Amino acid sequence: MAPPAQEVQPSSTPINDEQPPFSKSRVTVIGSGNWGSVASKLIASNTLTLPSFHDEVRMWVFEETLPSGEKLTEVINRTNENVKYLPGIKLGRNVVADPDLENAVKDANMLVFVTPHQFMEGICRSLVGKVREDVEAISLIKGMEVKMEGPCMISTLISQQLGLNCCVLMGANIANEIAVEKFSEATVGYKGNREIAEKWVQLFNTPYFMVTAVQDVEGVELCGTLKNVVAIAAGFVDGLEMGNNTKAAIMRIGLREMKAFSKLLFSSVKDSTFFESCGVADLITTCLGGRNRKVAEAFAKNGGKRSFDELEAEMLRGQKLQGVSTAKELYEVLSHRGWLELFPLFATVHEICIGRLPPSAIVEHFGRKPKFTLPI
Amino acid sequence: MAPPAQEVQPSSTPINDEQPPFSKSRVTVIGSGNWGSVASKLIASNTLTLPSFHDEVRMWVFEETLPSGEKLTEVINRTNENVKYLPGIKLGRNVVADPDLENAVKDANMLVFVTPHQFMEGICRSLVGKVREDVEAISLIKGMEVKMEGPCMISTLISQQLGLNCCVLMGANIANEIAVEKFSEATVGYKGNREIAEKWVQLFNTPYFMVTAVQDVEGVELCGTLKNVVAIAAGFVDGLEMGNNTKAAIMRIGLREMKAFSKLLFSSVKDSTFFESCGVADLITTCLGGRNRKVAEAFAKNGGKRSFDELEAEMLRGQKLQGVSTAKELYEVLSHRGWLELFPLFATVHEICIGRLPPSAIVEHFGRKPKFTLPI
Repeated sequence: MAPPAQEVQPSSTPINDEQPPFSKSRVTVIGSGNWGSVASKLIASNTLTLPSFHDEVRMWVFEETLPSGEKLTEVINRTNENVKYLPGIKLGRNVVADPDLENAVKDANMLVFVTPHQFMEGICRSLVGKVREDVEAISLIKGMEVKMEGPCMISTLISQQLGLNCCVLMGANIANEIAVEKFSEATVGYKGNREIAEKWVQLFNTPYFMVTAVQDVEGVELCGTLKNVVAIAAGFVDGLEMGNNTKAAIMRIGLREMKAFSKLLFSSVKDSTFFESCGVADLITTCLGGRNRKVAEAFAKNGGKRSFDELEAEMLRGQKLQGVSTAKELYEVLSHRGWLELFPLFATVHEICIGRLPPSAIVEHFGRKPKFTLPI
Repeated sequence: MAPPAQEVQPSSTPINDEQPPFSKSRVTVIGSGNWGSVASKLIASNTLTLPSFHDEVRMWVFEETLPSGEKLTEVINRTNENVKYLPGIKLGRNVVADPDLENAVKDANMLVFVTPHQFMEGICRSLVGKVREDVEAISLIKGMEVKMEGPCMISTLISQQLGLNCCVLMGANIANEIAVEKFSEATVGYKGNREIAEKWVQLFNTPYFMVTAVQDVEGVELCGTLKNVVAIAAGFVDGLEMGNNTKAAIMRIGLREMKAFSKLLFSSVKDSTFFESCGVADLITTCLGGRNRKVAEAFAKNGGKRSFDELEAEMLRGQKLQGVSTAKELYEVLSHRGWLELFPLFATVHEICIGRLPPSAIVEHFGRKPKFTLPI
């Protein structure tokens, strides 16, 4: 990890107030689930070797008491492992778990948001007025909501609530595979400031995790949500045992609808973003594995006779499928704006999910409309 | 198949010389293997219902004597099945097998080339001076060679040898899946004449086989060849059991190199072509199934200790892998033009194939070069 010549700052060392406070960037990761822990590990390996960052990485942990009676933060700081959400992986000795959100962010000028998306509104509210004025943020959170008035982007929520600039990082990122340092890639989406984007790339990039920046925050973030709807469609194809040919066609049509929908919502969205890891690669990963695909496969195998709610409860033990709710939200937007015919795949996924169409409609729908063309 | 009101021309009816000879288009399919037979079936279902085409579809068959002692063409014309290369599938009564190449093409003004690519030079030579002056052609043949002086495109070979215009049709097209009418898509690439392209789309498009035309013959045709090199890389990842994340990353990098290489060779190649069925969809199909992937997986599982030649002989019973030879040809071009560093995936695939690098290099190579950027 760290080259021999470099001093590792012990995790218990308090911040030294006498050194120039802002000379080096200080990073805090807000969230410590599976992906949050892996993100902390990636970042911590870089802050040790890059001179422009403080070694220490603060990781805010939603405190829990473990069955042993110990606090989760205490165990993380003692063992250097997130024993609950990423057992068996050393995070790096310079990761410091902190149960106090306000304390965790107060010195940081780089905030990495990586919590479940439903907690973000509350977290943002409690951070108002507590963060440094020069702070930069990045969101790793996939799965914003698509509301009638437009998508409710997590990066926008963070920017607006906290009055700061927020980038996003998305990609084909299965946390457990990156934790064991299997090769993968990710995409940073940024709005205007290329230098800040480069700094995020420096912070995350490792030899096994290659990060690229693109100036298209909306395109990158939309990919992370819309792919789940395509994964539902891919799952239907798997359940119907239609083969790789059909599956590839459905994934391609899905990618095209993702691109067209994003461009209709934000004219700034770039085609090239969909060739990045956040686009085609994340779509492939999600349509090959992933829980949306898996439950949709079971749904189609049962001929749509068992509901998604029932299958979810049985197969996912409390986790929820984002694809089904995103498909519903998307359908409302498409219907409201008169775009249903432009997005037959998105529309059909929802109609299958609610039982209005049989799973086989996922391919029949296209055949009936050979003259369908997207304006984009 | 045919609507009740429409007369089906019996396959034995000779061409009626008294009707205006060129009022309707006449189609001949040159080739009758697995894909050629499926193409004939697709086309035959359309010529029956579209008024601008003659019902009859001639299919040139390289004559063989079957174990029963019968000629292949006789059995096809009697049973309406290609019992050798597509058993169990009715081609349509309007498909006429013809063992005489010259006779098969003489009345056609639309020629569909779908033979193994190594036969094309000989076929073109024997067709010189034998085709109609107003004839249009389309090639369904994947796997052109990439020679030092540039790729030897099959469409160019046909155009130049026969002095005619040649489109291409490529896509995620597993013949046996299309034969049983599973949903899939394809892309027609054309040079200049949009009307001709539309005519090819009409001829091939069915409710389960959706065809789109793009003005980019080189881009479409290059996709059909270069994807095989990426499939070798994907097979290595499978053999090393690196997971979906890494596989998606390698496929994405492969798609990017396909696009960049095509654009360096032909400035007319369009980015959007790689979003079509011939691009991302065919790549996905080939990297999920396909023999290039399969043999490469076995190669990596054996740690590169058994050669591709040996594995091919054992696993493919006489069929040859295109990916390995294309990777070799590509490497020569990249090396000759000083482009090796621009295409680390293409280069690494070849170096692994010849044993210069271990299979694991497929991912290590990228990590060592995080600053690598393609100019395109």
